[in-house]
Amino acid sequence: MANVSIVMGSDSDMPVMAQAAEVLDKLGVEFEMTVISAHREPDIFFEYAKTAEARGIKVIIAGAGKAAHLPGMCAALFPMPVIGIPMKTSDLGGVDSLYSIVQMPSGIPVATVAINGGTNAGILAAKILAAGDAELLARLKDYSENLKNDVVKKAEKLEKIGYREYLSQMK
Amino acid sequence: MANVSIVMGSDSDMPVMAQAAEVLDKLGVEFEMTVISAHREPDIFFEYAKTAEARGIKVIIAGAGKAAHLPGMCAALFPMPVIGIPMKTSDLGGVDSLYSIVQMPSGIPVATVAINGGTNAGILAAKILAAGDAELLARLKDYSENLKNDVVKKAEKLEKIGYREYLSQMK
Amino acid sequence: MANVSIVMGSDSDMPVMAQAAEVLDKLGVEFEMTVISAHREPDIFFEYAKTAEARGIKVIIAGAGKAAHLPGMCAALFPMPVIGIPMKTSDLGGVDSLYSIVQMPSGIPVATVAINGGTNAGILAAKILAAGDAELLARLKDYSENLKNDVVKKAEKLEKIGYREYLSQMK
Amino acid sequence: MANVSIVMGSDSDMPVMAQAAEVLDKLGVEFEMTVISAHREPDIFFEYAKTAEARGIKVIIAGAGKAAHLPGMCAALFPMPVIGIPMKTSDLGGVDSLYSIVQMPSGIPVATVAINGGTNAGILAAKILAAGDAELLARLKDYSENLKNDVVKKAEKLEKIGYREYLSQMK
Amino acid sequence: MANVSIVMGSDSDMPVMAQAAEVLDKLGVEFEMTVISAHREPDIFFEYAKTAEARGIKVIIAGAGKAAHLPGMCAALFPMPVIGIPMKTSDLGGVDSLYSIVQMPSGIPVATVAINGGTNAGILAAKILAAGDAELLARLKDYSENLKNDVVKKAEKLEKIGYREYLSQMK
Amino acid sequence: MANVSIVMGSDSDMPVMAQAAEVLDKLGVEFEMTVISAHREPDIFFEYAKTAEARGIKVIIAGAGKAAHLPGMCAALFPMPVIGIPMKTSDLGGVDSLYSIVQMPSGIPVATVAINGGTNAGILAAKILAAGDAELLARLKDYSENLKNDVVKKAEKLEKIGYREYLSQMK
Amino acid sequence: MANVSIVMGSDSDMPVMAQAAEVLDKLGVEFEMTVISAHREPDIFFEYAKTAEARGIKVIIAGAGKAAHLPGMCAALFPMPVIGIPMKTSDLGGVDSLYSIVQMPSGIPVATVAINGGTNAGILAAKILAAGDAELLARLKDYSENLKNDVVKKAEKLEKIGYREYLSQMK
Amino acid sequence: MANVSIVMGSDSDMPVMAQAAEVLDKLGVEFEMTVISAHREPDIFFEYAKTAEARGIKVIIAGAGKAAHLPGMCAALFPMPVIGIPMKTSDLGGVDSLYSIVQMPSGIPVATVAINGGTNAGILAAKILAAGDAELLARLKDYSENLKNDVVKKAEKLEKIGYREYLSQMK
Repeated sequence: MANVSIVMGSDSDMPVMAQAAEVLDKLGVEFEMTVISAHREPDIFFEYAKTAEARGIKVIIAGAGKAAHLPGMCAALFPMPVIGIPMKTSDLGGVDSLYSIVQMPSGIPVATVAINGGTNAGILAAKILAAGDAELLARLKDYSENLKNDVVKKAEKLEKIGYREYLSQMK
Repeated sequence: MANVSIVMGSDSDMPVMAQAAEVLDKLGVEFEMTVISAHREPDIFFEYAKTAEARGIKVIIAGAGKAAHLPGMCAALFPMPVIGIPMKTSDLGGVDSLYSIVQMPSGIPVATVAINGGTNAGILAAKILAAGDAELLARLKDYSENLKNDVVKKAEKLEKIGYREYLSQMK
Repeated sequence: MANVSIVMGSDSDMPVMAQAAEVLDKLGVEFEMTVISAHREPDIFFEYAKTAEARGIKVIIAGAGKAAHLPGMCAALFPMPVIGIPMKTSDLGGVDSLYSIVQMPSGIPVATVAINGGTNAGILAAKILAAGDAELLARLKDYSENLKNDVVKKAEKLEKIGYREYLSQMK
Repeated sequence: MANVSIVMGSDSDMPVMAQAAEVLDKLGVEFEMTVISAHREPDIFFEYAKTAEARGIKVIIAGAGKAAHLPGMCAALFPMPVIGIPMKTSDLGGVDSLYSIVQMPSGIPVATVAINGGTNAGILAAKILAAGDAELLARLKDYSENLKNDVVKKAEKLEKIGYREYLSQMK
Repeated sequence: MANVSIVMGSDSDMPVMAQAAEVLDKLGVEFEMTVISAHREPDIFFEYAKTAEARGIKVIIAGAGKAAHLPGMCAALFPMPVIGIPMKTSDLGGVDSLYSIVQMPSGIPVATVAINGGTNAGILAAKILAAGDAELLARLKDYSENLKNDVVKKAEKLEKIGYREYLSQMK
Repeated sequence: MANVSIVMGSDSDMPVMAQAAEVLDKLGVEFEMTVISAHREPDIFFEYAKTAEARGIKVIIAGAGKAAHLPGMCAALFPMPVIGIPMKTSDLGGVDSLYSIVQMPSGIPVATVAINGGTNAGILAAKILAAGDAELLARLKDYSENLKNDVVKKAEKLEKIGYREYLSQMK
Repeated sequence: MANVSIVMGSDSDMPVMAQAAEVLDKLGVEFEMTVISAHREPDIFFEYAKTAEARGIKVIIAGAGKAAHLPGMCAALFPMPVIGIPMKTSDLGGVDSLYSIVQMPSGIPVATVAINGGTNAGILAAKILAAGDAELLARLKDYSENLKNDVVKKAEKLEKIGYREYLSQMK
Repeated sequence: MANVSIVMGSDSDMPVMAQAAEVLDKLGVEFEMTVISAHREPDIFFEYAKTAEARGIKVIIAGAGKAAHLPGMCAALFPMPVIGIPMKTSDLGGVDSLYSIVQMPSGIPVATVAINGGTNAGILAAKILAAGDAELLARLKDYSENLKNDVVKKAEKLEKIGYREYLSQMK
């Protein structure tokens, strides 16, 4: 049964939202995923958000851009954590999305991650579930270990070939 | 019967929202006014916004601060114009409110006025109604005439007493 | 007879302004459209704005970029609603246009939509007219219904093919 | 046993951090709370963050201002959710704190709440624990119900006394 | 005969505009000064700006705040230099005024000075006239000499009494 | 003899600075033009700026980007008007250049134009000289007349072919 | 003999610059201190900056606000490190000062500290000297140790009296 | 023996960090260089930063982007100067990196250079060492002399070929 719901206001957000899905797949966390708009179909959205708890959802990941209301409206209707992903925008760089998601009024928090931070939203959802799931916590620690090893390998490569060669291989 | 609905997400917005009410009173436009929160009471809010048309409302004026979702959610549920007033905030000056209200996605516009622009929201609501109400339009023209006369009087006073005296009378 | 006037300060704004025209065409709202500059031809502009009411115009949609004065000057000369569209700018992303349009002083509101929000400006103009036109209101409701259906179809597609396939079809 | 750790980089952050403590007290969630600096005492901080899991901590709430590194460094050392509170700053309003906390690189998320959002950080911590604690979830729902009732009462008061009287009672 | 015109959109700008007047008085430059609004009395404003050249005006200093259109509209109507002073605003600090004044489109420059830069606007007007007036240029050089001497005196005072005493005398 | 000096801190600013040169050429204003750096060759720069008056220079146009000090240092050394052009920057869009140029302290104004506003800087320099040169003023009025005619032609074209055709011809 | 020079463009910067002086006094580093303006007395400034090396200065600390050119011009004239302190400004919060100081072009770095960061500028100057002075390095380590102890004491106090009492003692 | 350590949080920062390496090579300053992450491998990072002094390092150059904690955490662990390079970011242009690095709390300065200012970071490191190394200081003066000559050559070229030809050669 899915414990995480991934929702986005527009399918143009898919490249970022898919990052969240991919990392949850990698960490063995089941999720449901849909395109849903608080603005364009408020009734469908309300129904969806209000029944999420009954479907077994423990965390919602909501991505949206510009005047991004989807995460906050999820948080108004769903009693457990909502993670918000501010989408980068072509004019304001995503600062509009960020402010619209993070600056929630007292009483209705949204756990906001970085602009376009799809992967981090997925990891954060897993960390929330891992607070009550020792096996998932172990998988998260493995994931972190791999992050570490990637950096170590890059440092070794730089040590070995020098910065000029490293740079030329990047091009 | 009220044609305008003035709503605010928190009664801390009252000083700004009252400006809208005052100018509508002055222009002879009837309105209803309430405190209502899309975040804290989404069901009540939904019901309110969806029944507004049936109550005869033609324009909604919605004020909100920070991650301000109230105007945009009104626009999702009400088919006629929604005017949004971004509240000044103590940390970001209101740019968070402004972006959360003005940067609406395609399909669901909010007619946004200046930060803390309560008076202008009221005037804009009246102008919208005046597109179909010649008497209200005449009252709006009188209102503008008075604005003009206020400036003319200040110019005359400055002409008469000079800038040093004018400045000292302001203190 | 046209009830809406679409004006832009420069023909470089045409791609955005045409969005407003297109949605008004789709909604069956007649409009006039011109290039006119408050800065480069103030006399022509003054004449145009002051005679708009007599021509039957009920709403002006004005788009401009950078130190965008066209919407505000329309609002100074025309007694009914003026909708302002801030153009995206190559250096500041359009925040200059946005501030120049939305931060109007008390007494002269401009109904501001999102940066590059041509479609929303057109919809807002229609909503203003729809406050006194039941048939137009019905067409607007159809338009909204279509927006909803587009989202529903995307959700169904995602449900059916999964996020990996959905993403690969976007590329 | 405490499941939540509240940490702040400076005791000048206490007024905001105490809001988190108060709401956790109200919701019946045990917590530990300390002043600890990743910059001024990195060894003590490292030890603290690395042993938090063993002490039974499930969520860390970290508040910091300016170039705010405390939440991010907690997230580097603690495997479960870290909530970051950006402090308002006297020069930049807290946008520096916000960017320093929310814009975390891929792999190490911080669940960021609003600037000075102490109460929301506490609620979010409770929501995270409530994903695995039905009683706490029930208390959170009561809390939300109270938020709703507060708004309803204000709306009734406004309905009863009108906006002029409401405003004068606020002064 | 006055060669400089000082105009402001609202008499709330007087404290800043009076700085321009004071420095022009000090430099022996005659000026006229008025309150005039491009938004609230566009006809009066147009007449004023278009007849300025005939009255002998060589430079206009225009101050305005928020969506500040006065300087730009002066520049559209008056063929010689227009100096714009962006007013500090209570919400956005004056960045709205600054962008509305400085970001003028190609063809219609406004010589913009700092936010609240009344004194500098006056000096700049004098420098413009001094390009064709050797006596005024000499007075400007004296003015600069005095600025230098003020700094020299402060340096001597600091040298003499030390920073602790200097600081305590400032309180 | 050249009355205008065009200086830039780096030859990467040439495309913008050449706009100033071109409009001055068009208006029949002689100018000198050089690359000079207050940061990289302060002695050469000092000598240049201090001798400008003796060479007959009446206005300096200075362009610079990032922490743009060239216009302000010109203003410290040259007694007549200095026009500053903030260069667009690849990271901050030019807001760094703008603040570094426009926010000059009291006593040393820089007449700032828009980001990348090379043409407007040239026009402003001509307007400054035109305050004492009736023939140049006449040429400036012709220039403005041409700007007007360009807009009129675009309006006629739009009137004739309609927005769809106009748009397709732009592509 | 003084190895550090503390300079400020205006004596209004004294409260911040005195912090630098105080921490240098505490760390036993000799310094000279003056008020000097690159804008108001460029000749005096040039002479001062160019002779600093001969006077034995190894580091210059320069504070300035708004379009802050003093640190960058010091860096153009002095061959060793220049530390820049951006002053908080009343309108833009100091972001203007920050950009004017930190965004130096390639070749002329300024070591920039936080807005109003007088103490940090002093510490950084000491750290620079400590790279070649083992005794000063030892004193810097003691200073850091004290910072650590201050935090430890606050943590102990909080542990002992609890957050409610701690908070009430702060008021 | 290397006196300078160049560290970066991600090898995507290499193009900027290599600029620092190149200028140090040019100035004859030995350095070590590695990829190291305070977030992804905090233990390795801690060990590295704490042993830097014993390895003979006198200056650390740390580059990082977004919520950039690497420079500040170096400054918490290393007693001599740390230079921070804020990386340009694709969404916020690097203002997030800049604030996360420059706005350090009192006691732990980071000497911040411009966004993407790799070359300036290298020069600043050399200037710090040059405070105690006369030969390096001489090489730095030669470097500055070359910067000057480059500008002089460009000025001569412009003088010779004119701006039109200069511009066409740039394309």
